Amino acid sequence: MAVSPAQVKELREKTGCGMMDCKNALEESSGNLDKAIESLRKKGLADLAKRSGRAANEGLIESYIHSQGRIGVLVEINCETDFVSRNTDFQGFAHDMAMQIAASMPVYVDREDIPEDLIKAEQEIYREQALGESKPEKVVDKIIEGKMEKYYGMVCLLDQPFIKDQDKKVKDYLGELVGKLGENIGIRRFARYQLGEEL
Amino acid sequence: MAVSPAQVKELREKTGCGMMDCKNALEESSGNLDKAIESLRKKGLADLAKRSGRAANEGLIESYIHSQGRIGVLVEINCETDFVSRNTDFQGFAHDMAMQIAASMPVYVDREDIPEDLIKAEQEIYREQALGESKPEKVVDKIIEGKMEKYYGMVCLLDQPFIKDQDKKVKDYLGELVGKLGENIGIRRFARYQLGEEL
Repeated sequence: MAVSPAQVKELREKTGCGMMDCKNALEESSGNLDKAIESLRKKGLADLAKRSGRAANEGLIESYIHSQGRIGVLVEINCETDFVSRNTDFQGFAHDMAMQIAASMPVYVDREDIPEDLIKAEQEIYREQALGESKPEKVVDKIIEGKMEKYYGMVCLLDQPFIKDQDKKVKDYLGELVGKLGENIGIRRFARYQLGEEL
Repeated sequence: MAVSPAQVKELREKTGCGMMDCKNALEESSGNLDKAIESLRKKGLADLAKRSGRAANEGLIESYIHSQGRIGVLVEINCETDFVSRNTDFQGFAHDMAMQIAASMPVYVDREDIPEDLIKAEQEIYREQALGESKPEKVVDKIIEGKMEKYYGMVCLLDQPFIKDQDKKVKDYLGELVGKLGENIGIRRFARYQLGEEL
């Protein structure tokens, strides 16, 4: 079936995948965006933080030191070419991410980085809370899902509200950047040190 | 027995321990410096990278970005008071360490941070090399010891030659600083990112 350029654009912004990958996924899903994302994810192409169809080994390592050296952040942002790594939007994104990590204390880049047993333990807590409040079984799953989304929004950088524009998530900002620069871009890793914290 | 101030000073510079701890250790070892160091180590007081008798939770987190963002370093240097953290010698040391890590690529702060099985594997390689060269058994241990020292000088920050003065090791530089500032000072942790490296 025919897929509109607007749909392809939206999918690219959401996933950071290449144009042809997005077009193919939309064609396969008969234009259903969620299914297309799902299919791209399954193919491992939609995972922004990891390598996509095109290798992203260029980019920038950025640092940010806050409150006279009491907080420090190191972050690696990847793109495909050193041409893009010199782009001011890309550099601004790298700087924003370092500040975001300093301020919002994420633990993981992506929700896929959270250990499976940690997710299960978290879900279990919410389940017991909900059951303790005598919520009917059939809404408990919905409640857990909602609380997990909040949890991801706390601990995952990509799911956090962007500090400079709380209406969007970091992954939306990343998606916009990918759409603008037309390269696969990923947040590969970060370290956040707080002076004297327990290790 | 009486212990000279010069001996105490030397021990403090070598271990970074407090004056009274050093004085006591020297008295117990009848002035034998190596035994005093050994005894301080055993008491866990001489481990510069970890907490000493006095807590070192102040300090600085320093970063260093090299070659237009292709290499980045984050390092935490601890001391006991924020007074010392504002000292220019301390700040210079923190900056030097960030540069050292960028240039010399240590993997660990201290040799005690190396996993036991990694040390054993390394020793095994050197043993086989030495035996392969038909060295007599009795000198093999000495050869291994020498090669392990070189290995530590590669992978451990504290054992590396200091980049700005290759005649001294980083731990000597640290010892001097401790002697000068009179506080327990430690390199707590570091991260070194190289753009696009394998994780």
